[in-house]
Amino acid sequence: MSFEINIGKTRRTRVSEVNFNSIPFGKIFSDHMFIADFRMGEWENCRIVPFGKFLFHPATSSLHYGQSIFEGMKAYAGKNGEALIFRPDKNLARMNQSARRMAMPELPEELFFSALNELVSLDRQWIPKVDGGSLYIRPFMFATDEYVGIKPSDNFTFMIFTCPVGAYYEHPVKVLIDDRYVRAFPGGVGTAKAAGNYGATLFPVKQARANSYDQLLWLDGIEKKYIQEIGTMNVFFQIGEKVVTPTLDEGTILDGITRDSVIRLLKRRGIEVEERRVSVDEIVQAFDNQLLLDAFGTGTAATVSPIAEIGYNGKKMHLPPVSTRQISVSIKQELQDIKHLKKADDFGWVHSVESSKVEVED
Amino acid sequence: MSFEINIGKTRRTRVSEVNFNSIPFGKIFSDHMFIADFRMGEWENCRIVPFGKFLFHPATSSLHYGQSIFEGMKAYAGKNGEALIFRPDKNLARMNQSARRMAMPELPEELFFSALNELVSLDRQWIPKVDGGSLYIRPFMFATDEYVGIKPSDNFTFMIFTCPVGAYYEHPVKVLIDDRYVRAFPGGVGTAKAAGNYGATLFPVKQARANSYDQLLWLDGIEKKYIQEIGTMNVFFQIGEKVVTPTLDEGTILDGITRDSVIRLLKRRGIEVEERRVSVDEIVQAFDNQLLLDAFGTGTAATVSPIAEIGYNGKKMHLPPVSTRQISVSIKQELQDIKHLKKADDFGWVHSVESSKVEVED
Repeated sequence: MSFEINIGKTRRTRVSEVNFNSIPFGKIFSDHMFIADFRMGEWENCRIVPFGKFLFHPATSSLHYGQSIFEGMKAYAGKNGEALIFRPDKNLARMNQSARRMAMPELPEELFFSALNELVSLDRQWIPKVDGGSLYIRPFMFATDEYVGIKPSDNFTFMIFTCPVGAYYEHPVKVLIDDRYVRAFPGGVGTAKAAGNYGATLFPVKQARANSYDQLLWLDGIEKKYIQEIGTMNVFFQIGEKVVTPTLDEGTILDGITRDSVIRLLKRRGIEVEERRVSVDEIVQAFDNQLLLDAFGTGTAATVSPIAEIGYNGKKMHLPPVSTRQISVSIKQELQDIKHLKKADDFGWVHSVESSKVEVED
Repeated sequence: MSFEINIGKTRRTRVSEVNFNSIPFGKIFSDHMFIADFRMGEWENCRIVPFGKFLFHPATSSLHYGQSIFEGMKAYAGKNGEALIFRPDKNLARMNQSARRMAMPELPEELFFSALNELVSLDRQWIPKVDGGSLYIRPFMFATDEYVGIKPSDNFTFMIFTCPVGAYYEHPVKVLIDDRYVRAFPGGVGTAKAAGNYGATLFPVKQARANSYDQLLWLDGIEKKYIQEIGTMNVFFQIGEKVVTPTLDEGTILDGITRDSVIRLLKRRGIEVEERRVSVDEIVQAFDNQLLLDAFGTGTAATVSPIAEIGYNGKKMHLPPVSTRQISVSIKQELQDIKHLKKADDFGWVHSVESSKVEVED
């Protein structure tokens, strides 16, 4: 199958208006966006157009019934003008997994990569060259039937837009375990990157923030005993010499791409990593025995984010200073170096996008 | 607080294009829609405009992070040209309950009722006069921050549009209990009328439909033992002389307005109604002992919908013919008569909307 992309370039790039030394996260959008429509069982009308608002019908079904999924990736500036994207094949696989669970159509590999390559190449001037900067890439798909009634949509739109982003603010995070709320449960959609999963967490997280925590550390909904994830990140704990992280087997946490990469890098270092049920009790006990040496979240936005404090039932577990951590700091650096090809890409994780033949005038 | 509504009328009504004897559900939209914006902590810019598409930013946060809630109501044609709306105060209360759980702003009573009255009055010609017809009213609210990042939105839009609808197709429904999937969980958002709750059910329901069932009858996610609801409807069972329906206390089912009305009408008839945990085992046992005399779903769209069959673990429980049912048929009729004021509105449920001073030209 071939997906021809119709390219309608912007008349004038906005890139010179951006101060790349001070970019607010998620508010600056590059010149172009990719759009494709799913109609009569086929993806069609693949196009790149100037970034901008589009017309939306008030009964667009995604807005009412939540058939809406997304992904997040980052592109980095390579040495020779190419764009480096970290493991986009995993994002496509996860997007298609989300699509199946949400009764939405899958994206063919060729469509996804043609769109990604063409868009990132066209807007390559938007990739920040500053330290810690990257081009955040947001693919998303949503139902577009103009219909009031609860049924899977027949029509969908797939879009990709990009945002230049600066270094993510990196104070070590404080996470709270609050067992009054549950993020995901077996038989639900916790593994899908579906819009509704995020909306459901906002009120509990808002309450945690009012108590000076950054995020919630979610527990399983059945026994309120096992740790799941942070909602925006997967979670790892170093207990003594080994590292533990919640298993994917319960079907309640996101199959994080940074999570998978960190597990592989740690194993290559010879560190024992256990993917299994991790109980709060085990973490509390490790903390009490001074064996909880490191804890961190992983995700595309924050990459690796050390945890400073875990709150649970009034107990405040303060983790060791980040400077003493054996894992979170070095693994973050290693990952960053691979993403920028400053370190050998032994796993074949980095997807390189060459410059487009299409040029945008200044 | 006063909410002035700016009214921009359509130049020409489309009402004459509609064949009210054959209206497809949810696809025909009346002349106007109401819109209000939430900015800087205040609802503002209340307006009625011709129904149509509006401009949507690709990063509109509701589409990515699911802060989106809705309600459903129906208006009926009264004898003297007025519109009769059933218990809209309950819809407002539930919308505000949904808003709180989803970290969204509440709607002031005056805004909601001014908008509802003005819009329905202006488009009163759209209320079908045919038997079983009504004007379906869809209030909904969604996050409008143009921002990539997971946080509660600061900006929201509240809209109402309406659709003339015919008699809902009323074959008795076949429901399947499939314990591989879970709709809602304690600590989650199952009581909120949030978009994500619906999207999460589409794939499981699609599978049920492939096996000739209409809907799923959802179980609790912890013990997979207690009945919750039908996803589009609450559920009632007549066991011998009494009626049982799942309790709201678990925080996992929608607080249905038809559910509440049916409970009150049944109690007035002197029928014992128990709101409590209802186990599948109890229903199976009642069926086996020929005590399961009636079962039905309740909701705004279907009002009261008799259940023909319940599938569970390969067992097909066929309920008695609808003509022999003591409750579902008569309670549906009674409810319908009250909504049309053909029967005394003893509970003060019917909200009457007088004709607007604003006229729309043909």
